[in-house]
Amino acid sequence: MKEIRVGIIGLGRMGRIHARNIAENVPSATLYAACHYNEEELERARKDLGVKETFKNYEDMISSPNIDAVVIVSPSSLHTKHIRLAMEKGLHVFCEKPIGLDVEDIKQTIEVINAHPNQAFQLGFMRRYDESYQYAKKMVDEGAIGELTLIRCYGIDPGSELESFVKFAADGKSGGLFADLSIHDIDLVRWISGMEVKHVWAIGKNAAYPVLDDLGELETGAAMMQLEDKTMALLVSGRNAAHGYHVETELIGTKGMLRVAQEPEKNLVTVFNEQGVTRPTFQTFPERFREAFLREMREFILCIKAGREPEVTAYDGLQSTIVAEACQKSIDTEQLINLN
Amino acid sequence: MKEIRVGIIGLGRMGRIHARNIAENVPSATLYAACHYNEEELERARKDLGVKETFKNYEDMISSPNIDAVVIVSPSSLHTKHIRLAMEKGLHVFCEKPIGLDVEDIKQTIEVINAHPNQAFQLGFMRRYDESYQYAKKMVDEGAIGELTLIRCYGIDPGSELESFVKFAADGKSGGLFADLSIHDIDLVRWISGMEVKHVWAIGKNAAYPVLDDLGELETGAAMMQLEDKTMALLVSGRNAAHGYHVETELIGTKGMLRVAQEPEKNLVTVFNEQGVTRPTFQTFPERFREAFLREMREFILCIKAGREPEVTAYDGLQSTIVAEACQKSIDTEQLINLN
Amino acid sequence: MKEIRVGIIGLGRMGRIHARNIAENVPSATLYAACHYNEEELERARKDLGVKETFKNYEDMISSPNIDAVVIVSPSSLHTKHIRLAMEKGLHVFCEKPIGLDVEDIKQTIEVINAHPNQAFQLGFMRRYDESYQYAKKMVDEGAIGELTLIRCYGIDPGSELESFVKFAADGKSGGLFADLSIHDIDLVRWISGMEVKHVWAIGKNAAYPVLDDLGELETGAAMMQLEDKTMALLVSGRNAAHGYHVETELIGTKGMLRVAQEPEKNLVTVFNEQGVTRPTFQTFPERFREAFLREMREFILCIKAGREPEVTAYDGLQSTIVAEACQKSIDTEQLINLN
Amino acid sequence: MKEIRVGIIGLGRMGRIHARNIAENVPSATLYAACHYNEEELERARKDLGVKETFKNYEDMISSPNIDAVVIVSPSSLHTKHIRLAMEKGLHVFCEKPIGLDVEDIKQTIEVINAHPNQAFQLGFMRRYDESYQYAKKMVDEGAIGELTLIRCYGIDPGSELESFVKFAADGKSGGLFADLSIHDIDLVRWISGMEVKHVWAIGKNAAYPVLDDLGELETGAAMMQLEDKTMALLVSGRNAAHGYHVETELIGTKGMLRVAQEPEKNLVTVFNEQGVTRPTFQTFPERFREAFLREMREFILCIKAGREPEVTAYDGLQSTIVAEACQKSIDTEQLINLN
Repeated sequence: MKEIRVGIIGLGRMGRIHARNIAENVPSATLYAACHYNEEELERARKDLGVKETFKNYEDMISSPNIDAVVIVSPSSLHTKHIRLAMEKGLHVFCEKPIGLDVEDIKQTIEVINAHPNQAFQLGFMRRYDESYQYAKKMVDEGAIGELTLIRCYGIDPGSELESFVKFAADGKSGGLFADLSIHDIDLVRWISGMEVKHVWAIGKNAAYPVLDDLGELETGAAMMQLEDKTMALLVSGRNAAHGYHVETELIGTKGMLRVAQEPEKNLVTVFNEQGVTRPTFQTFPERFREAFLREMREFILCIKAGREPEVTAYDGLQSTIVAEACQKSIDTEQLINLN
Repeated sequence: MKEIRVGIIGLGRMGRIHARNIAENVPSATLYAACHYNEEELERARKDLGVKETFKNYEDMISSPNIDAVVIVSPSSLHTKHIRLAMEKGLHVFCEKPIGLDVEDIKQTIEVINAHPNQAFQLGFMRRYDESYQYAKKMVDEGAIGELTLIRCYGIDPGSELESFVKFAADGKSGGLFADLSIHDIDLVRWISGMEVKHVWAIGKNAAYPVLDDLGELETGAAMMQLEDKTMALLVSGRNAAHGYHVETELIGTKGMLRVAQEPEKNLVTVFNEQGVTRPTFQTFPERFREAFLREMREFILCIKAGREPEVTAYDGLQSTIVAEACQKSIDTEQLINLN
Repeated sequence: MKEIRVGIIGLGRMGRIHARNIAENVPSATLYAACHYNEEELERARKDLGVKETFKNYEDMISSPNIDAVVIVSPSSLHTKHIRLAMEKGLHVFCEKPIGLDVEDIKQTIEVINAHPNQAFQLGFMRRYDESYQYAKKMVDEGAIGELTLIRCYGIDPGSELESFVKFAADGKSGGLFADLSIHDIDLVRWISGMEVKHVWAIGKNAAYPVLDDLGELETGAAMMQLEDKTMALLVSGRNAAHGYHVETELIGTKGMLRVAQEPEKNLVTVFNEQGVTRPTFQTFPERFREAFLREMREFILCIKAGREPEVTAYDGLQSTIVAEACQKSIDTEQLINLN
Repeated sequence: MKEIRVGIIGLGRMGRIHARNIAENVPSATLYAACHYNEEELERARKDLGVKETFKNYEDMISSPNIDAVVIVSPSSLHTKHIRLAMEKGLHVFCEKPIGLDVEDIKQTIEVINAHPNQAFQLGFMRRYDESYQYAKKMVDEGAIGELTLIRCYGIDPGSELESFVKFAADGKSGGLFADLSIHDIDLVRWISGMEVKHVWAIGKNAAYPVLDDLGELETGAAMMQLEDKTMALLVSGRNAAHGYHVETELIGTKGMLRVAQEPEKNLVTVFNEQGVTRPTFQTFPERFREAFLREMREFILCIKAGREPEVTAYDGLQSTIVAEACQKSIDTEQLINLN
């Protein structure tokens, strides 16, 4: 069993999750190198995670002869550049979502990826590796709910983080609610239905922080979509769930319905007290998708070793971005948007 | 305690529910008269329900000096006419939904109703009398979930009735999915938010019975609405729930969410068997709203006795019809519809 | 349709429930007479419920030529005497649980009841008329869960009433936890299994109010029983459920399990807020069993009219009392008790 | 970071779980050696898990100078002997439950363990490492449910395995339902309450396979226990859950109740189809406790590295065995059993 030596760029919240997974829990992988602007973080990587080589410059890291693959968790605006550079160095690439922020730029990046067919490229839509989603997808594929007619997706961040988001939003742009949060749901819609989006109308309301109106941001938004075969999709995206991190998906078919995480149950405990009967809930995405993050990374390493193409492609990243942009355009213009 | 003597027009499925409730379970009310085209049904009303006077002609019944109020459960197309005639005879009127099928006709009927301010008029939006909805409405009004931002309503009939609907639809028009089924949800949206609808986009898909495309009918439809204050509403309407009669309502606010009948649990039984852990579900609307039908009728009688105005007005019926029409127009034109 | 004229003895909390049901919601029944020691309560009965005759003395009431049936909601210690007197006056009798407090006394009362075979006698085990229990019982009878092996019953009163119980207990004896609360569960075990209890061991613990040890009372108790055919029964009884009124029943069979009210869900609302995902709960027995109280009374009237024998017999009351006594004896002696 | 090299004895169903966890998912541990009677299984361990040394004889393996610790997953009857031999060789020991089958033998083994205080010993009560149980235990310890009054534990194996158990039971003795299955629940009762058991009464019923009566085995059993401080415990153990692997625990305190896995929900999916609303369920213990098995092994390695004593001690194994024996004695004698 050959070990795959991995270099990671970015050791922020998300980067540290991937780094630890690779270092401790991904068979056949070694976290060999890390790149970050902050020396303290690099020191921690060396001490806690056994990283051998650390860098402050990305190009230096990918020039190391000791790594086989790179995991990109840099700021979203650098993703496409980092992908292209790594591809050109002959490395396998795992990139966190989104693949990029600009459709043309993503298209050029896809050309570079396609020019290196022997190198694996995988995009971080980790929900596809969540066991509950996989269970639901399998049921759909086996016809257990008949033909799909409607998909409903909720992606609502915990309200506890809304106040700090408002401050953050004041400084610049988050990319907008749909590009930032709904992108996972857009991927789910495409993955589960196997269809592309044709028409979109999106609306939103700022009620807890009306100041977001001035910032061009949304606290809560909704988008309705019509897919190629008339399947319907309803997306609710938000930053203000009082009870935690609410990611829920519903699949309505001609023979039944499935709901994934109808209630964001944190564990198997039920509490009976003065409040009534309560299920504690997930509060953050790392908690909810802990296993999925691990499993997507294992899959990436397995793909490299087996010479297989990862399932989540750069094209998936492109299409999701196009739909998220259409949602934002609908918000901005208050019009129904048609995608070709 | 003066007894209110009630005459009923229409002894079909819905009419029989109202008739039995009045005859047996509404204090201070007597089911005195009944009007139906079928003599057998009238005979049953005399024998089983103790009805004193029966009629084949509506105008004859409302001319009887022995009745104080009329309950209209005739075909929808006759509602406005029957309301006007009864109002002019000085009777209190309870009318099943919808109040009518044509906006102008409804407006004229409202004028007649307004001309008789001492006679009670109540429309049969019985969900407002369901205990779970009242509990939720009270929480909203008390601010328990902060400011409302989104309302999601599902109204899906059991799939067991779809085949017969397809046959029925072939013969003529049902009024369309939104006028027929969503009208209750449209009333809920208006009742709970206290806001009117401004913009609507509606889509649909026929998957189990593609023949419905030709008939201009929908198996499953979805509508997204923006209300006056930007509150969002998502409506899913359908005729094909495999598990029964699925009426679910969700209220998202800045401080919490409420779901009414997230799962259409028939009773308090949970079954553990080879299928997993299962809750049996309501199969029909009379089962789900048994108590609500009873309570709306009791409220109607109490309003008459107390000289109070019923809460569900003819105007509520008009506004709901306007929105349902807009949904249908959106389906027909594939456009976003603006309401003034 | 002949009206059955009913006299009621006892207008306390439970008595008022039955009185209002008879007066307003039981077809073919009229609440004609009422007996209570308090004149104000009688005045209220005349005004609110339309009662025609009121009495301070029970024997006077049952001597009235105007009543057909009596509903006994007097103190438990008077039940047997009141039953016998009414039986001897030729009246039909509905008696709240328990039928009595002393086994020999109950046996003599049963002889009197048996001597009047044309008069209906029904005991107030209203749970048998709860729709969820009836649904579960039907499934058991149809073999849906195979052969019964274990029954688990929880009957736990809301903790909000515990403090006042402690004061009440200090004054005298409640009859003990098992006779007072578990008697309903004992009846359920017998009803559902069709078997009698053979062996009992009961234990208890006073943790919130250790003073109950001195009073010979229990805050929480548990009893394990072996039935004739080795079916097992586990009973938990208590006075301290923080979340409300927790009555739960579980039936384990060779082919599946059923739970009735696994969680005491008050309605169909689910709340999502900082506490997590919560279902509001029933707080009191009149709330939980509102419909069951109504349906048992309707059944009593139907039995009288049809000359049918009510299903819940005096013998059921006797057997439940014998088992409750055995539980108490086990607590007192710390021994396993064998019943013959 | 020093690697702990582990040798494992036993590569059956349970052994393979531990072996794979150590080989792939336990940081700082290497699965260095394996001992099994079957050469094919050893070959698989070398190829799939990278095991360096394989043995057919246990004493040979523990004599290898290359291992630091041993994981014992041999037949239960050999556990105590294998523990003693490994302790005497200076190895750290992890032993699957039960620690042994005979109380005296276990006591002697504990003496050997105590004579080697610098070697870690951990018993495989993995439920203590399940996140839901840890969450519940923490709530109890923090006083969230007040003082404990009652613990209810269900441990019911899937009915799909009952038929093969009947065949297996015919060949010899399983150790009995309580020693075989309830032992985990007995440990939970002791762990959560911090109390020992004083009195036990146990009963059982064979309904699906009455032949088990002749074999001295139980399909379903129940035990009621009184702990030192009068806290009550109810245990239901069985081999016939139609819906899967049902392990449920309830903690009743003076201020609230907790349930762990009230329903054995396999994942976050809810299915709505003709059966009603269904949650799929866990079918096997490796599925339910996958993470717990992993976490207990990680803890074992961490204890070795830190020189800490594992929390699950040999004494815990002894006490659980004593209680399980008392349950069996109660079944055999039909008496209440007192433990000193």
